[in-house]
Amino acid sequence: MTETTEVPVAVAKSETKTPSPTNENGHAEEAVVEQTTNGTGDEKVADDAKKEEKKEDPPKEMRAVVLTGFGGFKNVKILKKPEPSVAADEVLIRVKACGLNFQDLMVRLGAIDSPPKTPTILGFECAGEIEAVGEEVGDEFKVGDRVVALPEYRAWSELVTVSKRYVYKIPDEMTYQDAAAILINYLVAYILLFDLVSLREGKSLLLHSVGGGVGQALVQLARTVPNVTIFGVCSKSKHEALSATGLIDHLIDRTDYVNEVRKITTEGVDIVLDCLCGEECNRGYGLLKPMGKYILYGSSNVVTGETKSFFSVARSWWQVDKVSPIKLFDENKSLSGFNLRHLLYQQDGSEYVRSTVDKIFGLWKDGKVKPVVDSAWALEDVAEAMQKLHDRKNIGKVVLDPALEPKPKPATPAKSKSKKQSSEDKKSKDDGEKKVENGETNGEEKEEEAVNGNGEAAESEEKPTNGDATESEKKESS
Amino acid sequence: MTETTEVPVAVAKSETKTPSPTNENGHAEEAVVEQTTNGTGDEKVADDAKKEEKKEDPPKEMRAVVLTGFGGFKNVKILKKPEPSVAADEVLIRVKACGLNFQDLMVRLGAIDSPPKTPTILGFECAGEIEAVGEEVGDEFKVGDRVVALPEYRAWSELVTVSKRYVYKIPDEMTYQDAAAILINYLVAYILLFDLVSLREGKSLLLHSVGGGVGQALVQLARTVPNVTIFGVCSKSKHEALSATGLIDHLIDRTDYVNEVRKITTEGVDIVLDCLCGEECNRGYGLLKPMGKYILYGSSNVVTGETKSFFSVARSWWQVDKVSPIKLFDENKSLSGFNLRHLLYQQDGSEYVRSTVDKIFGLWKDGKVKPVVDSAWALEDVAEAMQKLHDRKNIGKVVLDPALEPKPKPATPAKSKSKKQSSEDKKSKDDGEKKVENGETNGEEKEEEAVNGNGEAAESEEKPTNGDATESEKKESS
Repeated sequence: MTETTEVPVAVAKSETKTPSPTNENGHAEEAVVEQTTNGTGDEKVADDAKKEEKKEDPPKEMRAVVLTGFGGFKNVKILKKPEPSVAADEVLIRVKACGLNFQDLMVRLGAIDSPPKTPTILGFECAGEIEAVGEEVGDEFKVGDRVVALPEYRAWSELVTVSKRYVYKIPDEMTYQDAAAILINYLVAYILLFDLVSLREGKSLLLHSVGGGVGQALVQLARTVPNVTIFGVCSKSKHEALSATGLIDHLIDRTDYVNEVRKITTEGVDIVLDCLCGEECNRGYGLLKPMGKYILYGSSNVVTGETKSFFSVARSWWQVDKVSPIKLFDENKSLSGFNLRHLLYQQDGSEYVRSTVDKIFGLWKDGKVKPVVDSAWALEDVAEAMQKLHDRKNIGKVVLDPALEPKPKPATPAKSKSKKQSSEDKKSKDDGEKKVENGETNGEEKEEEAVNGNGEAAESEEKPTNGDATESEKKESS
Repeated sequence: MTETTEVPVAVAKSETKTPSPTNENGHAEEAVVEQTTNGTGDEKVADDAKKEEKKEDPPKEMRAVVLTGFGGFKNVKILKKPEPSVAADEVLIRVKACGLNFQDLMVRLGAIDSPPKTPTILGFECAGEIEAVGEEVGDEFKVGDRVVALPEYRAWSELVTVSKRYVYKIPDEMTYQDAAAILINYLVAYILLFDLVSLREGKSLLLHSVGGGVGQALVQLARTVPNVTIFGVCSKSKHEALSATGLIDHLIDRTDYVNEVRKITTEGVDIVLDCLCGEECNRGYGLLKPMGKYILYGSSNVVTGETKSFFSVARSWWQVDKVSPIKLFDENKSLSGFNLRHLLYQQDGSEYVRSTVDKIFGLWKDGKVKPVVDSAWALEDVAEAMQKLHDRKNIGKVVLDPALEPKPKPATPAKSKSKKQSSEDKKSKDDGEKKVENGETNGEEKEEEAVNGNGEAAESEEKPTNGDATESEKKESS
């Protein structure tokens, strides 16, 4: 992969209350510019935009979702970047669909270990068509192959280069959106249920965030085993929709789930799958029956406000009790952790993951699993899409589709901000903004309110947030 | 189960250097008496021993291995006890074979949690024929059924009552010895490999005490999965015999196994099954690959000398590092504990265990597993049998057979005690004897040297330790 230097271009940024960028630090490349098809207002791009017949001499460019610095949604921008050139062991993918994961929110906040250097293109997951292959890729992949891939960042873009180790061919009948909706969610779910737990007939299962992408994948995969009892924890607002699926035996509200579960089964459950961390670790362990298994596979409790809170991160760590193996021996319990990112990029787990992808695609072909897509969004609407995930309002996977047109600009700027959201915004401003680790976001603080307005808008998909860049991206839909 | 009060009788106790019991505390019932067929020297028994035609008015008696107090081998005695009478949900089993487990050594030492009250009949595992059924047992079992059972203590006896929850019919072709050799070892091994680990093709496995009963069961069961690599850790003295089986890929000496394993595979192993505890917990965890699983299923490191050492127990606890679930999440690792005794008797796991027994017997019928019996011993030779386990000199299961005649008394008392054994004996005397928790062992200290002599004798099965009770038990072999 060759990540070339950033080329400043257009941004699909709505509602520029500050009419021109008041960038005090000279970061002109992150200026918020009204976007047109090929970015008027930018010298470099203007050249080749006009002469399409001219061959590839100046660097071609692509749209990408760029994180310009850790913090709030305002740091997530659609920028033009040079098209990447493919390295020897890589393939170049023309992206047709991208998957959003909670992890992307944590990256945005800088609330993960070994965070990337900013600016960086966000995203871990995309599906598309191979446009070029490196010279050492061999017969495994060829131009035109339909694939899904797991690059470490850079997935939310029109084009991405990925090492062949993280690229998987998709079945002919699978749509790109389905592929992007399946990959990470079902990988995590499959490994949890069948490699770490080895789910058997008759077991009971507590799932947090059961409405989310992984949650829905877990429910479907668990249902491939007979007579499994599923306790699904999520906010009350999702109960009706999830209840309609008929797949979850007990839908339980987040607020007092331990007591709710105990009311139904005094003895506890066989399996707890926890993507929250913090105090839920101890609670989950406490809910286990003998021979029970607890797995931590995420730490979304770290994400509280819109920006990183030192206290929420620290609390999430402090609250987790350490456990002695002797206690596990006495109580006949198991504790596991699963982190796909570490496994793939730090622990050389690509072969194992590939074999698991094969199994999942096999289940898909057999009709045993069917990804639930909550909603698909244009790249320009990424902030709203992320906000929906943040607010845990999605049921199933949230995907981006570079070919989609952004939502139309609202007739009036977002105004009906709820009191709750307003105070959350203020809070995140207070405790988060000073954590931003590089200076590149300075000078844009004034935009915050408008951008944070996405939070409210996310409650209804009809309310758009990104305004003017309506028609601008049509060319990519071919 | 009705455990009636103890009836003092004969003991197969060899080499009574102290000609008559010098019991300072009035525990006459534990007197060491030269044994004859029906225990001359005891009033109660003498009556009915002479008149066999007389019907069951006086309590009938049976031989049993009784632990008279926590401590060394001298507290393990063959005593006459009243035959138990069957409770409503129990069956009465005429015992044909008993299994020895490392746990029995720990019970003898008092080095387990919630130890039993002494005196108690030892043993967790026996096979035999049902002689009576309680009124609530129903159709599940009938007189004459061949069964194997898991009573909580009391298994090493001619007769035992067991709740039907812990009784399992054995296949017609299975011998009683095989049944006793299979049950606990293969239960533990099966649950570890297929429920806690879900062993898959291509995985690598580190097994401690690979020559022991559970070790051998683990090796056989692991070999039912293709392409599994087994690292077997045991003392060098067993390597030749175990190597001959061809089942273990890498036989590794206990003393420096971590480095030995790293020499063979720098990346570590997928699974570590640890029956030792103490520092091996941390070492085992450290040897795991990503996605690796460590299970603690025993704490035999606690057993150092012949008697309980406070320091060895405490050290075994102090040495075990507590682990945060967050560490497991970062490293993609699992920690489990498995304790069959807790599961069965404290955690209501009897149904789960029964279904697992079914699976194991199925594998046995298919010829997939075949228990390895190290040696079979008369009840009277139990101390020697336990010593062999203690010294980890067994390969496979050590069983007791109440029908076996004790070994003939040696021509001369055991004399060729090795220097090493002598010093170990002294050590255990020093740090262990004062830990004995009830006074019933007082007055017998003078016998210790003779009894400890069994340790040396255990190296060769030809050297007997229990002397005079040669012909006494013939009547039971019918």
